[in-house]
Amino acid sequence: MLTMQDALLALTKYWTDRGCMVVQPFNTEVGAGTLNPATILRVLGPEPWRVAYVEPSVRPDDSRYGENPNRLQTHTQFQVVLKPDPGNPQELFLASLEVLGIDIHAHDVRFVEDNWANPATGSWGLGWEVWLDGLEITQFTYFQQAGGMTLDPVSVEITYGIERIMMALQGVSHFKDIAYAPGISYGEAFGQAEYEMSRYYLDDADVESQKRLFEEYAAEARRMLDARLPVPAHVNVLRCSHTFNVLDSRGAVSTTERAKAFGRMRTLAREVAQLWAERRTELEYPLGKAELPPAAPEPTEFPKVSGTRQLLFEIGTEEMPPSEVAKTAESVRKALTEKLAATRLGHGKVTTYATPRRVVAFVTEVQAFEPDAEKVARGPKKAAAFDADGNITKAAAGFARGQGVDPSELHDLDVGGVVHVAVTKPDPGRGAAEVLSGVLSEIVTGLRSDKNMRWNDAKLSFTRPVRWLVALLGDQVVPVAASTLTAGRITRVHRTAAQPTVEIAAAEGYLDLLRIHGIEADPAKRRTQIVEAAQELAATVGGSVDVEGESALIDQIVNLVEEPTAILGGFEPAYLDLPGEILTTVMRKHQRYLPVRSADGKLLPHFVAVANGAVKPDVVRGGNEGVLRARYEDASFFWRADLQTSPETMKGELDKLAFEQKLGSMAQRAGRIGRIAQSLGKTVDLDGDDLTTLNRAAELAKFDLGSQMVVELTSLAGTMAREYARRAGETEAVAQALFDMELPRSAGDPVPATIPGALLALADRFDLLAGLFAIGAKPTGSSDPFALRRAAAGVVAILREHPSLRAITLPVGLAAAAEQIGAQGIDVPAESLAEVSEFSVRRYEQQLIDRGDDHLQVAAVLPLAEAPALADETLAELQRQVETDGFAELVAVLQRARRIVPPDTAPTYDASKLTEPAEVVLHEAVQKVTPAPTTLAEFVPAASVLVEPITTFFEEILVMAEDPEVKAARLGLLATIRDLAAPVLDWQALGTSLN
Amino acid sequence: MLTMQDALLALTKYWTDRGCMVVQPFNTEVGAGTLNPATILRVLGPEPWRVAYVEPSVRPDDSRYGENPNRLQTHTQFQVVLKPDPGNPQELFLASLEVLGIDIHAHDVRFVEDNWANPATGSWGLGWEVWLDGLEITQFTYFQQAGGMTLDPVSVEITYGIERIMMALQGVSHFKDIAYAPGISYGEAFGQAEYEMSRYYLDDADVESQKRLFEEYAAEARRMLDARLPVPAHVNVLRCSHTFNVLDSRGAVSTTERAKAFGRMRTLAREVAQLWAERRTELEYPLGKAELPPAAPEPTEFPKVSGTRQLLFEIGTEEMPPSEVAKTAESVRKALTEKLAATRLGHGKVTTYATPRRVVAFVTEVQAFEPDAEKVARGPKKAAAFDADGNITKAAAGFARGQGVDPSELHDLDVGGVVHVAVTKPDPGRGAAEVLSGVLSEIVTGLRSDKNMRWNDAKLSFTRPVRWLVALLGDQVVPVAASTLTAGRITRVHRTAAQPTVEIAAAEGYLDLLRIHGIEADPAKRRTQIVEAAQELAATVGGSVDVEGESALIDQIVNLVEEPTAILGGFEPAYLDLPGEILTTVMRKHQRYLPVRSADGKLLPHFVAVANGAVKPDVVRGGNEGVLRARYEDASFFWRADLQTSPETMKGELDKLAFEQKLGSMAQRAGRIGRIAQSLGKTVDLDGDDLTTLNRAAELAKFDLGSQMVVELTSLAGTMAREYARRAGETEAVAQALFDMELPRSAGDPVPATIPGALLALADRFDLLAGLFAIGAKPTGSSDPFALRRAAAGVVAILREHPSLRAITLPVGLAAAAEQIGAQGIDVPAESLAEVSEFSVRRYEQQLIDRGDDHLQVAAVLPLAEAPALADETLAELQRQVETDGFAELVAVLQRARRIVPPDTAPTYDASKLTEPAEVVLHEAVQKVTPAPTTLAEFVPAASVLVEPITTFFEEILVMAEDPEVKAARLGLLATIRDLAAPVLDWQALGTSLN
Repeated sequence: MLTMQDALLALTKYWTDRGCMVVQPFNTEVGAGTLNPATILRVLGPEPWRVAYVEPSVRPDDSRYGENPNRLQTHTQFQVVLKPDPGNPQELFLASLEVLGIDIHAHDVRFVEDNWANPATGSWGLGWEVWLDGLEITQFTYFQQAGGMTLDPVSVEITYGIERIMMALQGVSHFKDIAYAPGISYGEAFGQAEYEMSRYYLDDADVESQKRLFEEYAAEARRMLDARLPVPAHVNVLRCSHTFNVLDSRGAVSTTERAKAFGRMRTLAREVAQLWAERRTELEYPLGKAELPPAAPEPTEFPKVSGTRQLLFEIGTEEMPPSEVAKTAESVRKALTEKLAATRLGHGKVTTYATPRRVVAFVTEVQAFEPDAEKVARGPKKAAAFDADGNITKAAAGFARGQGVDPSELHDLDVGGVVHVAVTKPDPGRGAAEVLSGVLSEIVTGLRSDKNMRWNDAKLSFTRPVRWLVALLGDQVVPVAASTLTAGRITRVHRTAAQPTVEIAAAEGYLDLLRIHGIEADPAKRRTQIVEAAQELAATVGGSVDVEGESALIDQIVNLVEEPTAILGGFEPAYLDLPGEILTTVMRKHQRYLPVRSADGKLLPHFVAVANGAVKPDVVRGGNEGVLRARYEDASFFWRADLQTSPETMKGELDKLAFEQKLGSMAQRAGRIGRIAQSLGKTVDLDGDDLTTLNRAAELAKFDLGSQMVVELTSLAGTMAREYARRAGETEAVAQALFDMELPRSAGDPVPATIPGALLALADRFDLLAGLFAIGAKPTGSSDPFALRRAAAGVVAILREHPSLRAITLPVGLAAAAEQIGAQGIDVPAESLAEVSEFSVRRYEQQLIDRGDDHLQVAAVLPLAEAPALADETLAELQRQVETDGFAELVAVLQRARRIVPPDTAPTYDASKLTEPAEVVLHEAVQKVTPAPTTLAEFVPAASVLVEPITTFFEEILVMAEDPEVKAARLGLLATIRDLAAPVLDWQALGTSLN
Repeated sequence: MLTMQDALLALTKYWTDRGCMVVQPFNTEVGAGTLNPATILRVLGPEPWRVAYVEPSVRPDDSRYGENPNRLQTHTQFQVVLKPDPGNPQELFLASLEVLGIDIHAHDVRFVEDNWANPATGSWGLGWEVWLDGLEITQFTYFQQAGGMTLDPVSVEITYGIERIMMALQGVSHFKDIAYAPGISYGEAFGQAEYEMSRYYLDDADVESQKRLFEEYAAEARRMLDARLPVPAHVNVLRCSHTFNVLDSRGAVSTTERAKAFGRMRTLAREVAQLWAERRTELEYPLGKAELPPAAPEPTEFPKVSGTRQLLFEIGTEEMPPSEVAKTAESVRKALTEKLAATRLGHGKVTTYATPRRVVAFVTEVQAFEPDAEKVARGPKKAAAFDADGNITKAAAGFARGQGVDPSELHDLDVGGVVHVAVTKPDPGRGAAEVLSGVLSEIVTGLRSDKNMRWNDAKLSFTRPVRWLVALLGDQVVPVAASTLTAGRITRVHRTAAQPTVEIAAAEGYLDLLRIHGIEADPAKRRTQIVEAAQELAATVGGSVDVEGESALIDQIVNLVEEPTAILGGFEPAYLDLPGEILTTVMRKHQRYLPVRSADGKLLPHFVAVANGAVKPDVVRGGNEGVLRARYEDASFFWRADLQTSPETMKGELDKLAFEQKLGSMAQRAGRIGRIAQSLGKTVDLDGDDLTTLNRAAELAKFDLGSQMVVELTSLAGTMAREYARRAGETEAVAQALFDMELPRSAGDPVPATIPGALLALADRFDLLAGLFAIGAKPTGSSDPFALRRAAAGVVAILREHPSLRAITLPVGLAAAAEQIGAQGIDVPAESLAEVSEFSVRRYEQQLIDRGDDHLQVAAVLPLAEAPALADETLAELQRQVETDGFAELVAVLQRARRIVPPDTAPTYDASKLTEPAEVVLHEAVQKVTPAPTTLAEFVPAASVLVEPITTFFEEILVMAEDPEVKAARLGLLATIRDLAAPVLDWQALGTSLN
């Protein structure tokens, strides 16, 4: 058996054989190998750097006294940094697994999107977590920025999680059972230290002392920066960080302290990085400058193709994030279509496909050549081209010379009625390969995703590295050069294949050729394969997969594999005792497994995992089952631990959870939510059981954020609140209210069914919106870190579904929130509340438009949207009324009345001045309608008496009478009508469509 | 080329293949791998433990900005701990060198005594530094005690100094040039950190902050001990230690602070160790208990030998300290002689020889058997053996039964005139092998040295491990069992020999057999070989070795090698510009090289090193030359650095040097010395140039202790003071005084030639003696850590050589010292000063006895020895006088006068009471001599007039007259004579030898 120390030596040997230097773990505590200066400082600047080292990584928060099988206060990372990217880091990594004895042909090894960002220090990178049969064994990151500086070149950072790898390799389920050295287990070697350091971090470290230490280290870091010594400065920043972590795990960091500490560490860390980079520059880069591959030569010769052929263009990448796969296929299709349209090259249909590792474009019936054409160049106006004597002017002569023609070749050209001189020259069509060469190159350089990165290519930038190109027009290679890449006819199949590269004879056979190698490029076909295989497997245990319910997950899976290999796994039925949401959350979010259910919808102790490629199913099944077991074991641990504490105790934990620097802790937020909800309850005269429920639920609001389960699986917030509240003896109504208050979680999610739940959910979102807008943290562009759009949409959705809460308009709710936020001493300007209202109304409008409502009708009810239920009813009534006789007339007269009255006209008039019969009749009709009903449904019949009088009035009366008093009375009469109608609808917004 | 990282991997592989576990360097700064809990805690208790790891060891004091070629603030140790001792750790270690590519057959690899002790933490061990061609590459220690606890089993600790090994292997002369990884030098990889951390440790770390950190860590360690968590407690002790080191390298630790800090760390470290041991016991030793080899079976059968044969007994050890080699040979000889004498076995001469690795005893003409004899057992007195009836009593019957004989066999035995009953039984002689078996076993178990250790043997204890025994009587193995060892006929030759074990046919051929294998067991022969070879080599460069002057060094070398292989090496003549004392000090003390001088005594740029065994001379020469070059380069560095600073600046450094906790810093001591010397100058009315010189030299006293050179090579104190003072423009007299003040360094060393130098030297020693006796730190037994015996001997020697300083008696000098010490607030009791006087007088007495003076004469002058020059003169005069006629008579009468007078008799008398002629004559003679001269030379002629009158007086006068007044007068007369003579000599002490 490979012991853990063997594994570390084998990895060291492997990477040193590949040019890595070995350094020692850092001699002060670090939370990750990344923080060793051998990574965090060395990735900066232009110097090449290849390093491999072991890093015992200390995370006080993970202290578990050695009891949790998977969690240690010190775990062992094996860290590799390759700078610059060698071009094949994934392949190098895979081969390193083989030296650990992992048969990568038998196992399912996958690169699953996982990005890394530490905004605090201005650092981020894109990459993956590497899965071994569903187990995350490694973090693989292309480091893009550090200390606020863009990295050039970028570094590849590979971080192996050694304990997990060893547990998987040795088939043990507790880290203590890892064979560390011959005859010595991990527990025997390190068990006591694990226990004692856990005690230190969780129970015994002196809080006040640690706080003083933090100050000392921070001050020393500051001084070292001033002395221009980044290395000792970095040491002190690391000590700050560790000390902070100790304080945190001792539960001793208040929100204010946290914010302050982070602020200081952030500034220091950035300055360290910048100073290091400066110092290396001053030292003139002792290790030299890294060199990236040169740009590929621009093609100058192009093959001739005869007849029409199909174009295949394949862009080979490292594993794209699932969300980018389809989008990229579509954007390539669009770009290709547009760019081809800008040429004269005849062609048929443009189709694209994509897998995680390739985007494939086909263009059918590509003509061999562009047709020849002519190019007309416009010269001066004819009037200026010849003088009075008919001689050519200097201007025209110059034009002809510039075009390289004799002035005699100038001809007339009518441009919008003005005659110019012009030249017409032949524009011969280019061959297809030449045309495509330019187009395809632009496609590659133009690739973009939501979040782009760089690798060992000076120009390209995309979601993940582009590693190869195939461009075939029929059987001919189209020469394409895109930065360092040159297209050919070699594609890549599974990395674990005996021959991982394959030559493509011709474009036409490509899809089938891939299929021979196990790869299905067509996502639709992959989806069908997955669904069919999953259902078939589920059926073997008497179950099925909810294909519709799991649609989003299946879409993800489709874009995680090139060759779906569905595998049925199982777990201990005993875990079914856990709440189902826990089980499915773990399966879906963490593992991308499809849950299997019985005919009555109950979970079965099975799942379907979808591996990539021709793995050994038993091996992969075993691995995935082990991972799920560990996760369920964790969840059981949290579950049991949480059940041993009370909701009140959990709620106490919220003090330690920061919400937002200015808005305070999660405990403060939960307090506000409770009070806002109670205020809203008053607004709707809540009483009886609902009031009792609300009061109690308000006390417990968000308590489950303090549970171990939710800390671990945040998406279970609410779900766990309900479970734990029930078990703590709360009423079902309270439990349900606590569950409800997290609803809706996303668009389309149900809203709270109960009134107390709805009030809490509203309070939650009003607090979020009012608070964050007040402190200026409103969403911008695509950035909406607090998900305020979703919150506003939630408010609207809840109010729409609960007409009984109509009294809670947006302004009322926001005012209630503002009161609580203001009580914390935070200024909530009225304009910001108005802005939130407006922002929320936009969400409402969007919901209606998305539903397919007529946009004019939507516009007509928007003024009512601060009470979305009212707006909904009005819209419904409007839709009913527009079908009704007479409604159009009513609208027309009301619009006409409004149009004629200046906006500032008051709705009052001296009735004695109205003497003409038509105006008297109208006056009387208005009296009948006054006061007018405020709902459309009541207003329309009531106001119907006005239609004829208004019509007659406009026919017979000159509103703008000469006698100003008469004129004023007439305008006042019309303004009265206008204002009677105004609260009901924005009649003007209906336009004339009804007329 | 093997890079440094290759070397670390190779060692890791080597030791893991031998069952070592690998751990990571500790994640807080440690000064040595020993402090990693994997060593310092794991050596405690009975659990087995084998571990190997790299430890970057941080020593702030070694910071040199990366400029010094051999010194780094962080150097790399490779640490191995083997617990229990596997029995062959040296062999395992040697093989590990081979994996580094070191050809141990070509190189001179030696184990040179080097013990380790950290009294602060109650830790110590015995072992060696391992030399590779003169370069210390490894520390090898048998860890005996830690945290005040005796280790059982003991651990072997092997600490490789990786940078030095790499520099030697790669042949580079600066650590920055080490090839660390392919294409990356050590300097490229770590140069910036080395510079910056040096800056931090030497210049920039904030002193006050570090002091506060120390307090925090110490308090946290305390708390963790109270919480019974040794692991976090240890972490905090390490942080204390590192913080202290930082403060120290910042020059910020006062003497008081140092003492206090050490005290705290010591207590904490001991408690951590004890707590760890307790916790492991409570955990019931998770790793089990180590097992030591079982005891060898006691021999029960013994071979028969016929005729007389020679006995060979060889005790094979690991390398003994040179000082133990000859001593052990002698003690074995003595023990063997005595133990054989206690048997009846006939034998010839007992001879012993020794090398570092073996003690060899020969006994010639050992008889085959002990002669038969009889044993008489004494019973009860005859009177008690038979009753009145002549019947045997119960007592006698019991005695006979106990002896296993019939009562009839009892016979009489006269014991000092009392008749007992007794039994005589035959006592047959045992065979030689049986006799020797017991004797030799006792020799082994009885082996002891000045400092003994344990290894993997439960019973034996010696200066180093005993690994094998050979016992041959002629060609027969004498069965010997001593603890785990059994004697045989297999000896061990060089470890690097093709066949490192050799079978011995018979005792008689042993010495020659060893010689065949290159080993000379006879130290005298080795000495001759060394001297001859050295002279021969020296002659080849026109020089010679001062065999007499280097005698002590040669003795050491004799006991460092089994096969002396002298090698001539050279060094750059440019180094001859350095003061010769520097060059020879380095050669002798550090390297055990013999300096080579020209006929006129000037140093030549050559040396003779003596390697062990059949090495490749060129390889060994190259290595040794490299080592010397590095050391001389270091010395040149210190020399140049020192010359760039002034004596005053160096003196300023003394503030940082602790002298003794209560007596303060070295600066305080130097101040006292200066003032005491000036006080002594007044005592002797110093004036003119000498006074000027003294005053200036007093200001500078001991300044060179603050020079880099003396910090590095302490034995150059004084020598460097003279050199640096000269170069700083001080007068030659001042320079010489500063040199002189360190004299004499040892017995036989010259004393200061100049008066200012002598005064300073006296002041130095008076301060030392008065101060340390005052605080109760006087020498006890063999413990004399401050070398007070040497100091007192120095005082005496100086005063003897400088009669002009006679006014400075011991009390006068000590009083001057006491005044200065008292001014520091330290109580100096009069008794302690008296004790110092007495202590010094004993040294004087010893000097005279050692010179061969008559002990009675010495005793006679001792009362004058508080002024040793006076005592010397008196003694000389005495020796002259004893040859003189009449002196014996004078002595006799004076002694007689004294004898008769009771001690408390006052020297006064009423002359009117003296009426007898003889007494009147004597009275008159006494009047002539009063007042008597106080020197012997003057006293004797003056007192000669007394001889006859006294003689007559005693003949004619009855001193004890009946008349009390007469009696009183007579006694007063004699007391007056007694007191006249008393200051001159202790006449009584001369005894009657002269008479």
